[in-house]
Amino acid sequence: MKQTNNIAEVAEFFKKNNNYAILTHQYPDGDTLGSAYALCGMLQQMGKKAKVLINGTLPKKFEYLETGIDKTDFEAETYVSVDIADSKLLGELNIYADKIKLAVDHHELHKPFADIYYVKADSAANCENIYLIGQKLDILFDKNIANALYTGIATDTGCFRYTNTTPTTHIISARLMECGCDAYTINKAMFETVSKNKKALEAFVIGNMEYYHNGEVALAYTTKEILKKFDISEEQVEGISSIPRTIEGVKVGITLREKDEKTFKISVRTNDNISASEICNNFGGGGHMAAAGCAIEGSLQQVKDKLLPVVYKYLDK
Amino acid sequence: MKQTNNIAEVAEFFKKNNNYAILTHQYPDGDTLGSAYALCGMLQQMGKKAKVLINGTLPKKFEYLETGIDKTDFEAETYVSVDIADSKLLGELNIYADKIKLAVDHHELHKPFADIYYVKADSAANCENIYLIGQKLDILFDKNIANALYTGIATDTGCFRYTNTTPTTHIISARLMECGCDAYTINKAMFETVSKNKKALEAFVIGNMEYYHNGEVALAYTTKEILKKFDISEEQVEGISSIPRTIEGVKVGITLREKDEKTFKISVRTNDNISASEICNNFGGGGHMAAAGCAIEGSLQQVKDKLLPVVYKYLDK
Repeated sequence: MKQTNNIAEVAEFFKKNNNYAILTHQYPDGDTLGSAYALCGMLQQMGKKAKVLINGTLPKKFEYLETGIDKTDFEAETYVSVDIADSKLLGELNIYADKIKLAVDHHELHKPFADIYYVKADSAANCENIYLIGQKLDILFDKNIANALYTGIATDTGCFRYTNTTPTTHIISARLMECGCDAYTINKAMFETVSKNKKALEAFVIGNMEYYHNGEVALAYTTKEILKKFDISEEQVEGISSIPRTIEGVKVGITLREKDEKTFKISVRTNDNISASEICNNFGGGGHMAAAGCAIEGSLQQVKDKLLPVVYKYLDK
Repeated sequence: MKQTNNIAEVAEFFKKNNNYAILTHQYPDGDTLGSAYALCGMLQQMGKKAKVLINGTLPKKFEYLETGIDKTDFEAETYVSVDIADSKLLGELNIYADKIKLAVDHHELHKPFADIYYVKADSAANCENIYLIGQKLDILFDKNIANALYTGIATDTGCFRYTNTTPTTHIISARLMECGCDAYTINKAMFETVSKNKKALEAFVIGNMEYYHNGEVALAYTTKEILKKFDISEEQVEGISSIPRTIEGVKVGITLREKDEKTFKISVRTNDNISASEICNNFGGGGHMAAAGCAIEGSLQQVKDKLLPVVYKYLDK
């Protein structure tokens, strides 16, 4: 395995190879999908064959990313991963784990698994990296590619709100708007459209939120039973995890989502230089400074009993 | 009264005069306040005397805008208004209405009232105009000025989500970040910080939302009794009105807020080219295409009975 920081070398890789399969991470989000469809469009523009591989099916709200993509199938030869920090996140695409020639990622704690890995961690979104590679390849950023790249940037920065946002994030977004991206429509779909049931679930979750450590910790949870009550599927729950941190005075916002009878998926969002990633590392998870995740075994009460004392340690530091 | 589109002329005005009073509009928001404090800081940097005049008191969440401002008082000589579209919006500052030498604004429907008016309506925020004037004046955009300008841009674009956002909006924001503006802190304070009580009220309002016309209409309401229950003041209710429209499939989002025992304040937000402004015109109100307001007399039930049939007419068109 070899690391490269040389974007010219990455561009050269894409010029040299053909028949690309682009791998996205499990529970696909806007950045892995935006990266994949933008790169796919770019490669097709270069006359290469390329396809996107998704864990499960493409979520409905991201279907517009397929616009302009030639979906004719072919036998893949060059496997590339985008926005995948760890081979554990390959999910059902794990069958290709040994074949990955290049990983393009922006996670600081990238665990190398590909033959070559290009990790630019000061990019707010991996889509910024794909944009920079596209520039190097003299790609014409058409409306479809611009939409895909903007999707990753908007979703991974919470629409320019998170600390990862940089001047470069804005400059690239300005350029994507000039290329005709539908910023308003994308933001509306990503941030402002919620189903009736999901909204009712949100209200329920907020109504049952728990506060600890003098209101510095807010904890929300969902169980399989609650999801059933509101007729919401597991995948639709994303977004809930951003709620606890928005409460005034909260430094650590926690969301617990029951995965199966013995495990909860934990999402930690922090303010004030408390490292969400370090908190989650205690439980074998990881992520970014202000947003990270892990899984903890036990009942709802047991999981709280394991997690909260660790959180308090970071608050009392 | 004289219109100018010449930014050099505006810059010249600021060089030539002294002892500035900068007027902001009533119910001051991030753009009028950001414009005023940025301009005040710029003029003080030029060695001029300048002060900001506010309707009422500076809202607590905007207090940081005063950082770095010299508040020594003096007798004002040159009155300038920022982000004021109409002299009606001068509020308690109306006593200076006849003295206003220059208006800097970005409202398309600006009704001239100043001796000279500079209106650049393709600017998403008036703070973009103040930035451009600052550039012309060779201002050093320090952290405080950058924070003020960013505040106006972020609030007037809903953090880069509204249709008024342009590539220029992003380019200026990139520049302000380079000048050290606290984008994250500002966005968090403006968009993501809600008190525990307000969040609980939100959950209650969502839980009691009503749907009509096959889910195309979502209606939320608050009464004095509900606000009392959650210990929330009338002014703190703002923001609630954006909720109903975010529900999938909703074309008209309505919020009813009990004003006194006989009247409800109505807020209408629409999607899909349904005119909120036309709906509200039926009740003597008005506003924009996608967001408008009016007041209707009656009990909660009576108000619904008056409003809903009118809304259906626009949906069935």
